[in-house]
Amino acid sequence: MSDAAPLDGLRVLEISSFVASPLCGLTMAQLGAEVIRIDPIGGAGDQHRWPLAPSGTSIYWTGLNKSKKSVTLNFRDPEGQRLVADLLAASGPGGGIVVTNAVGRPWLGYDQLARVRPDVIHLQILGHHDGRPAVDYTINAGLGFPMITGPEGHLGPVNHVLPAWDVACGLYAAIGVLSAERHRRSTGAGRRITLALEDVALAVAGHLGFLAEAQLTGADRPRIGNHLYGGFARDFATADGKRVMVATVTGRHFADLAAATGLAGTFAELERLLGADFAVDGDRYEHREVIASLLTPWFAGRDLAQVAQGLAGTSVLWSPYRRFTDVVAGLVADGGPEGNSMLHEIDQPGVGPVLAAASPLEQDGRPGPAPASRLGGDTAEVLAGLLGLAAPQIRDLAERGITG
Amino acid sequence: MSDAAPLDGLRVLEISSFVASPLCGLTMAQLGAEVIRIDPIGGAGDQHRWPLAPSGTSIYWTGLNKSKKSVTLNFRDPEGQRLVADLLAASGPGGGIVVTNAVGRPWLGYDQLARVRPDVIHLQILGHHDGRPAVDYTINAGLGFPMITGPEGHLGPVNHVLPAWDVACGLYAAIGVLSAERHRRSTGAGRRITLALEDVALAVAGHLGFLAEAQLTGADRPRIGNHLYGGFARDFATADGKRVMVATVTGRHFADLAAATGLAGTFAELERLLGADFAVDGDRYEHREVIASLLTPWFAGRDLAQVAQGLAGTSVLWSPYRRFTDVVAGLVADGGPEGNSMLHEIDQPGVGPVLAAASPLEQDGRPGPAPASRLGGDTAEVLAGLLGLAAPQIRDLAERGITG
Repeated sequence: MSDAAPLDGLRVLEISSFVASPLCGLTMAQLGAEVIRIDPIGGAGDQHRWPLAPSGTSIYWTGLNKSKKSVTLNFRDPEGQRLVADLLAASGPGGGIVVTNAVGRPWLGYDQLARVRPDVIHLQILGHHDGRPAVDYTINAGLGFPMITGPEGHLGPVNHVLPAWDVACGLYAAIGVLSAERHRRSTGAGRRITLALEDVALAVAGHLGFLAEAQLTGADRPRIGNHLYGGFARDFATADGKRVMVATVTGRHFADLAAATGLAGTFAELERLLGADFAVDGDRYEHREVIASLLTPWFAGRDLAQVAQGLAGTSVLWSPYRRFTDVVAGLVADGGPEGNSMLHEIDQPGVGPVLAAASPLEQDGRPGPAPASRLGGDTAEVLAGLLGLAAPQIRDLAERGITG
Repeated sequence: MSDAAPLDGLRVLEISSFVASPLCGLTMAQLGAEVIRIDPIGGAGDQHRWPLAPSGTSIYWTGLNKSKKSVTLNFRDPEGQRLVADLLAASGPGGGIVVTNAVGRPWLGYDQLARVRPDVIHLQILGHHDGRPAVDYTINAGLGFPMITGPEGHLGPVNHVLPAWDVACGLYAAIGVLSAERHRRSTGAGRRITLALEDVALAVAGHLGFLAEAQLTGADRPRIGNHLYGGFARDFATADGKRVMVATVTGRHFADLAAATGLAGTFAELERLLGADFAVDGDRYEHREVIASLLTPWFAGRDLAQVAQGLAGTSVLWSPYRRFTDVVAGLVADGGPEGNSMLHEIDQPGVGPVLAAASPLEQDGRPGPAPASRLGGDTAEVLAGLLGLAAPQIRDLAERGITG
């Protein structure tokens, strides 16, 4: 086994904003790639996005731009634009990689950049497939999930809070870059890739069966609150005012739940009465309300500790519902970095000491998270290192407003 | 540019179930890798998961196992277990890759498989970081999102319907394999990787600022319905009973929305009265209710077509809410495969002709989606092709119940 970071030697230029493209760069940076985020002077549209630290620094921006270098250039000046091409040309054999969500900038397009770097791997993130802009929340609205999310009986859409499509898009983008780079190492050939947020959402919803189900049945799934479609999983209230999520995705899970709650005999009799087999997903789903009703008193009669005790040693999958503050308190109590080697305390300028995550891909050679640079904080170093510019040239660029 | 599929020559053994690990294999298969899913005879726990086609075939299983080969072996018999190791050993220079979410099976572990294939890339998906099993819905409950999702004023958790952590986990897994394989091509060294669903969720929530915000402020975000935290985005009802999601994530978006709705003067006056600047994210967020109240009549007075007309040509990001049936009808109306080259009609055995998605990574050489194999349908071909077994040997294995 190797103990080097797996992407050592890869160099990526990221001209990005918001979630998807910054997450792509972050994901590769946390596996050892050198990722240089290039922003317009003053920052892109995500520079001040909430949540903010008391200092006004964006927790969001610093979170998504950990472990990267930050360069700022005047994107409106042809000289600033040319510097991007120069950096690409000079980025070495593991370089020649551009990830961007910027649109309407021909100087950042594949055709232009392939002139200076014929083997460029150019990944363009779009909103809609046809190039119209979009964000996670508009894509999600157009897809169908908000109409089947939320409490049974609720009318109207329920948006998700996690920008799940942005996250998936950023990860797909990293897959796109890595697969293209693999191929380039065999053939020397670059690649032009486009990745639309809309396509990510359609593909994933398709892979999971949401689209084929609608196409085949002509019907939409009902809104079923916190139940799991096609199985038995639901939330229950405990005696001490907590709530737990309980999931049985196999027959064994359900049999264990029945035994642990003392309801094995009751459920067996109920199966006989209903002509059902609760080892079968669909039967558990069809009779979810009566199953839940029978289980409710067991949870309502126990506090969280007793529920934990009652389900210990069984295969039943369950978890208390927590708030983010509970999660953080738990991580700190678990020893934070000591309890999980993914987590480190970093001292993020503008934010202070905070827990931050390395890549969830646990392996030898996994780098710890490094704080985000100050916006533009690496401009001089990158221009000197990659382009060989001397200090007076770098000063001149700054004085003329080409770099910031 | 190359027009070959980027992962041509990669060969992956996937011993998997449910969402994350099958999505990992699917993602690589759709970029040209040969992915062989190996199941126990009769299938894994996800074989019959909902949604189901009228025939009883799982739309879900076939959706996540497109473009793969399917092999079934008797996992309880040492001879079946040894066949997995034999297939790994024989899988060639682009092989030696195992992705699995199976636990408690030492014969599938890194240590055992590295004996037959010292350069193995072994990616083990776990539930919790400490190895305890978990599913998306229990991880999500434990993290904090359900307590801030759903209508303002609603009490109790609101689960997500999209298994977003499973999706992210599957994509991270593909990134893990591709980055490890890149490194192996340089060094010859294999890699042992573990990826916990819990860590994926913690890392992503961390990168997006949810954890640091809770750590720094000691407080949880409020439940704000369909509003966007830290900006102005919300849903509105139209005159014809539809709903639209409208998002302004930059000052320009908001200025365009104000102009398009004839409210530029009103908002300017309101900014003056409130001492606010709606070009700033936080000010739009703080005054989201009054902003929404002023916009509501504009949407309520127009049907969807008029809303579309009124917002056309502006930078405002918006979308009608659709149901999955609307999406499918729209895709079919757009010409399906003709409207978006990612979508193809495939004839999925057991399901029938359905729209299916290729990889959202649009590029030359992108393979179209191929139907999922019948469970075990490629066993004989794979044993013959990789292990060189002759027909009588393959028949003997089947007769003795080692293959299925």
